[in-house]
Amino acid sequence: MKKQLNNSNNIGIIGLGLIGGSLGLDLQALGYEIYGVTHRADTAKRAEERGLAQTISNDLQILKNCSIIILALPLSNILQPDSGLIDALPPNAVITDVGSVKGPVIEVWEKLHPYFIASHPMAGTNQAGVEAGRRNLFKEKTWVATPTAKTNPKSLEVVHQLACSLGCKWITTNADLHDQAVGLISHLPVLISGALLHMIAQENDQEISTLAKNLASTGFADTTRVGGGNPVLGVSMTKSNRSHILHALDKYHESIELIKEKIISEKWEELHELLIVNERIRPDFLKVDKT
Amino acid sequence: MKKQLNNSNNIGIIGLGLIGGSLGLDLQALGYEIYGVTHRADTAKRAEERGLAQTISNDLQILKNCSIIILALPLSNILQPDSGLIDALPPNAVITDVGSVKGPVIEVWEKLHPYFIASHPMAGTNQAGVEAGRRNLFKEKTWVATPTAKTNPKSLEVVHQLACSLGCKWITTNADLHDQAVGLISHLPVLISGALLHMIAQENDQEISTLAKNLASTGFADTTRVGGGNPVLGVSMTKSNRSHILHALDKYHESIELIKEKIISEKWEELHELLIVNERIRPDFLKVDKT
Repeated sequence: MKKQLNNSNNIGIIGLGLIGGSLGLDLQALGYEIYGVTHRADTAKRAEERGLAQTISNDLQILKNCSIIILALPLSNILQPDSGLIDALPPNAVITDVGSVKGPVIEVWEKLHPYFIASHPMAGTNQAGVEAGRRNLFKEKTWVATPTAKTNPKSLEVVHQLACSLGCKWITTNADLHDQAVGLISHLPVLISGALLHMIAQENDQEISTLAKNLASTGFADTTRVGGGNPVLGVSMTKSNRSHILHALDKYHESIELIKEKIISEKWEELHELLIVNERIRPDFLKVDKT
Repeated sequence: MKKQLNNSNNIGIIGLGLIGGSLGLDLQALGYEIYGVTHRADTAKRAEERGLAQTISNDLQILKNCSIIILALPLSNILQPDSGLIDALPPNAVITDVGSVKGPVIEVWEKLHPYFIASHPMAGTNQAGVEAGRRNLFKEKTWVATPTAKTNPKSLEVVHQLACSLGCKWITTNADLHDQAVGLISHLPVLISGALLHMIAQENDQEISTLAKNLASTGFADTTRVGGGNPVLGVSMTKSNRSHILHALDKYHESIELIKEKIISEKWEELHELLIVNERIRPDFLKVDKT
């Protein structure tokens, strides 16, 4: 039996992939009434079978009584929203997104809706699509919002409460700082990991190439995980965070050159020192609660 | 009650860290009598508590009745063995190692023992030390040996059987090809992953640095895992595979430059194509059975 809550608790989720589907599962468990929108009818059917929302359709009209709408779409779709989507958003609802770049999203969305909150839950797996959503994806993960001078404080508080109810650690910062930091710890890794795969793909000595495939172990698997991920996502994040990513690539090049120089001149003690610092700092980036 | 087997089944393991300890656990389960040697007395005590071998000591004399000896030592110790260790090896035993570089190991060991087999089980976790060993570490992993013209075929067969009994996929190749391939899929990842950590460590904008720590998620964790690993191992593998690693770093630099160029000139379709190839080839490096 469906639990009928008042309108203020109706949440619309546009897109039921990894992020949208996971939000749908967790938010239903918290007692919210969820309206999920998918792009295609066959996806809607599968999302229904998986129970990703109570009401699922590819018709945006189902969102009309929602007080919160989450744009759980690919970044490119958030940045270039269909006019049909914009028209379907209730004027008084709080709208939020999950895109990994915030400056360009704010650029587009602050003009489109008065109660838009730019946000970014830092959770992911290498799964995508309607089969990917799972319970507790956000638990103990960071959910960052990037309010501006134009942001409505009550709307920000609504998204804050939503993130907390999912067990997230909530932080706010400005969009440019977010995009710089995410460029370093999320976007750059995709490209440097991608460069490793690209380099191996270029190996034209068949014997080496076959042996490399046979010998590749967990180290290679881990280092290339994000570089072998969704190409559409890879391009859209690079496109929308271009200048920060180029700057990060330059800085990264300096570190590569420094390491190379130590190897060329056989400064083994200095390489050792560098690796000791790496070993020491890495855990700072892994702790969940860093307060 | 200990199962007493004949001498031909006595196996000595020098070093009871991740690899040696895991070998000890699995080989005991297969019915072998294991003699484990640790460097320090306190490690011997802990290894005994964990049951990593039936007989454990920091005295190399316990190896005198072993017919197989596995050098499960850090690469630097394999390359510069103590004279005490060399003297303690039974002249008729088969000796094998687990080092990640094979050319330099052969250079040293082929002169030291007539029945030396250079080998490299491709298994690892980010654990190290006497607490790290665990059952089934080698199951379905590749174990590669690099025989030379001087290699005794019967000794090679002994190591082959040992690897098979642990559930490994066995391959043989020559040392130089091994070192080239391992340079690409194992050593290079350590350095490019290390360069990412080094770059982040250099960030002197405190606000960005703190935010990066707060926002870092699974992508960063995976991409930096091997770069934040054991510094001693990092240096010794780089030192012993220097020329192949430098060549690999040059090739890697070309891939980074290519990607950067596509971003600078906004060739998004071409970046997309490159990422599609990456996504397609990565699974070839993850399959266990690639025959």
